[in-house]
Amino acid sequence: MGVPEHSYNPVTPAIVAELCGIVGEQYVIYNEPERMIDYAHDEVAGEEHAHMPEVVVKPASAEEIAQIMHLANLRLIPVTPRGAGSGLSCGAVPVYGGILLSLERMNRILEIDRENMVAVVEPGVITNDINEAIKEYGLFYAGYPMSVELCFIGGNVAENAGGGRAIKYGVTGRYVLGLEVVLPTGEIIQLGGKRVKDVTGYDLIHLLVGSEGTLGIFTKIILRLLPLPTERVVLLIPFADVPSAIAAVPRIMTLGHMIPSAVEFMDRLSVQTAYEHLGERLPHPDIGAMLLIEVDGYSKEQVEAEYNAVVDLCLELGALDVYVGNTPTTERRMWRPRQEMAEAFKAICPVQSLEDIVVPLAQIPELMPELERLSQKYDVLIPCYGHAGDGNLHATVVKKPETPMEEWQEKLPAILEDLYIVVGRLGGTISGEHGIGSKRSRYLQLVMDPTVIELQRRIKRVFDPNNILNPGKIFPHLNH
Amino acid sequence: MGVPEHSYNPVTPAIVAELCGIVGEQYVIYNEPERMIDYAHDEVAGEEHAHMPEVVVKPASAEEIAQIMHLANLRLIPVTPRGAGSGLSCGAVPVYGGILLSLERMNRILEIDRENMVAVVEPGVITNDINEAIKEYGLFYAGYPMSVELCFIGGNVAENAGGGRAIKYGVTGRYVLGLEVVLPTGEIIQLGGKRVKDVTGYDLIHLLVGSEGTLGIFTKIILRLLPLPTERVVLLIPFADVPSAIAAVPRIMTLGHMIPSAVEFMDRLSVQTAYEHLGERLPHPDIGAMLLIEVDGYSKEQVEAEYNAVVDLCLELGALDVYVGNTPTTERRMWRPRQEMAEAFKAICPVQSLEDIVVPLAQIPELMPELERLSQKYDVLIPCYGHAGDGNLHATVVKKPETPMEEWQEKLPAILEDLYIVVGRLGGTISGEHGIGSKRSRYLQLVMDPTVIELQRRIKRVFDPNNILNPGKIFPHLNH
Repeated sequence: MGVPEHSYNPVTPAIVAELCGIVGEQYVIYNEPERMIDYAHDEVAGEEHAHMPEVVVKPASAEEIAQIMHLANLRLIPVTPRGAGSGLSCGAVPVYGGILLSLERMNRILEIDRENMVAVVEPGVITNDINEAIKEYGLFYAGYPMSVELCFIGGNVAENAGGGRAIKYGVTGRYVLGLEVVLPTGEIIQLGGKRVKDVTGYDLIHLLVGSEGTLGIFTKIILRLLPLPTERVVLLIPFADVPSAIAAVPRIMTLGHMIPSAVEFMDRLSVQTAYEHLGERLPHPDIGAMLLIEVDGYSKEQVEAEYNAVVDLCLELGALDVYVGNTPTTERRMWRPRQEMAEAFKAICPVQSLEDIVVPLAQIPELMPELERLSQKYDVLIPCYGHAGDGNLHATVVKKPETPMEEWQEKLPAILEDLYIVVGRLGGTISGEHGIGSKRSRYLQLVMDPTVIELQRRIKRVFDPNNILNPGKIFPHLNH
Repeated sequence: MGVPEHSYNPVTPAIVAELCGIVGEQYVIYNEPERMIDYAHDEVAGEEHAHMPEVVVKPASAEEIAQIMHLANLRLIPVTPRGAGSGLSCGAVPVYGGILLSLERMNRILEIDRENMVAVVEPGVITNDINEAIKEYGLFYAGYPMSVELCFIGGNVAENAGGGRAIKYGVTGRYVLGLEVVLPTGEIIQLGGKRVKDVTGYDLIHLLVGSEGTLGIFTKIILRLLPLPTERVVLLIPFADVPSAIAAVPRIMTLGHMIPSAVEFMDRLSVQTAYEHLGERLPHPDIGAMLLIEVDGYSKEQVEAEYNAVVDLCLELGALDVYVGNTPTTERRMWRPRQEMAEAFKAICPVQSLEDIVVPLAQIPELMPELERLSQKYDVLIPCYGHAGDGNLHATVVKKPETPMEEWQEKLPAILEDLYIVVGRLGGTISGEHGIGSKRSRYLQLVMDPTVIELQRRIKRVFDPNNILNPGKIFPHLNH
């Protein structure tokens, strides 16, 4: 068994002195609550999810991290790794205090290898900066989380981030060819390399991708790059209702013989909220739901053929209109409401739970009336938007202004449990790209067999026998 | 520690009776060497790699397999799962005897879900049969091992098979959305489902994909399907020498702004051997190396634009000629020498070692003179062909007819060790798609850190505490 979480040791001044010796005094924050508060939360709304670390350290190398882990493992002090803090499952929140290990200083693009079409980066590089650095070489990193201009690539790998273009390009993991990892016990290991095929032993790389910082700390990431698509068109397509919008999605792929680079969905409430937040007029007065479809490729002819097929199919299937964006400015403007959606909801009502459910694509029409039923049963709003092409929807449970906070706090767990049971029944799961973290750990058993949870706990112990790396995440607490 | 391999128990008549009770007497082969010999080997050449099982069982369901595993785990009897036996690393060879568990009877396509674009299949379905069954719906399974008309999908998943189209479509694992698995201890678990995104806990699916039958037995596989490409062109492009052929590959992708669906490479010796084997004339008298490039897509315009770009670039880079195949018959004919390559080599000299090395694409030109050096140092032939787009090359060490067998057997390990050291130094690895199996287990440490091997051994023990499922594979023997 791992160490029960209640038996961790506190971070003493002596430990802090050791940490200062490893990373340098200027890279340790201790006894300064006003500077440490920024490291107590991620982007999950609600103070109840925040936890203060006992100390913040900012190492600059794998070797420094190895020393920190060695120390923490010896002294039984929990360590929580943190990227940009843009996560949505409390993955980087130090729920047991201890050491908050920020990767912010490890922000170098180490190599752009054009011949092999790979980039080697440190975990603290902002995801978007990778694409800025490589586009001049006609290369492209296909990961596209919605927070692309803020988030770190290390966090993307830790959460196996999805985002807007996963339907065509897949999620982060598809592009991770190699990792340098510091294990919880302090060893530094190298996995994979600049190679797109490798069946030498078990696939530890993709066990670590999406492990939410619980199995190791990434210090170097080798990413596969693609040729930069040269053509792109964005379509905004309002429909009168949800079922007709959703029904169009599989048909675009099977009848249209193509995979769009993005198929985003927004229900009426989401569209209204986002456009109001941006101070813009709705694209059409009768919107019941809207699709944002992006087509990209390497030839003008192909992209034109594909977007014409999308337009024809959607109009045939009852679209109210189709708006075409084919310049960088119009494309950006069309994506903006979708990108600002989470912020828009927060502006209206900060008390909410942003969800990340997945159902099989064809089951989305069955899901929508269930969301309606839950919103009535519990007297909450549940706007819904997300990556329709993947069946990954950010249904967001929002408190009504008139509901007292106590009532909200009491009913939210019941709402989530109901929602997750529905999702499970439809063949889906509770997180597609945000992760379980501490936010959803208590619900894991709703969609996962005890045997499978136990296998995962035992894998965790293989890497982290003392359970000191990011404890309290993914699994229900060990001592509960 | 797991159980040392020397302490397994024999398969007694009493055990055989229990097995007959589980699967039915007609599906057990015992005491019939002439029928059991077929299950003693896979496609690896050389009698020294064959091992007879003590009993062969052919279950029909996950429940029967669960009972077999429960029995074997209790009695400490090794179990080796087997698909079509077309493997190339002795993965399905029962090196410690025991129970050979053949999945040949579990050969049903259970469901084709067009709306969700997934197929649910049993492990014993022939890979090609999946595509035959779904093409009428405009759907496509993108896995394409060279043995596609023989191999089982279950074996593809167990080995994470690559093949001819991995450069564009990725390897088998990319298409595995869900698995039903019987664990070595007899539990049946369900992982994933009809969903393309899932970050609920660790990615056990992709830990099991490529685990070479050592962590569990797949009894149901949920595969992601793609829209069927409607256009395809195959190009055969002879070059005067290896460096110019290889130099063309990354340029086609970066300058040509595309990813071909296949980029196969054959050196002069391979081309000659394959064409002679098929009784056909060489495409060009001065071939020093040849590329087979396939371009596919959903629009005629796109495919034409892409293949014209390939033709122009290759001629500019010194190609001797370009042959275009754009009908099913010509395409098939152009692929045939590549598909028959392994057979062609066997016909000339059955004493050989078919390798599966990987190097970063841009390092292929550095690899080729090393192969030449090794062939001279050890007085062997080392023809080389394979998936150039992935850097995955099937260099094949072939005995010269005049070399005595004893000398060959003595020097082969030294040749492989030298070869693998070169590959490791170039940033590559010893297997890209065939697996480690028992064929390469002793060499694992040449390209993998002891810490990483130990992590993997411990993961093996999480799943298989008694080390009864496919022992003797991947890792050097436990009791050595």
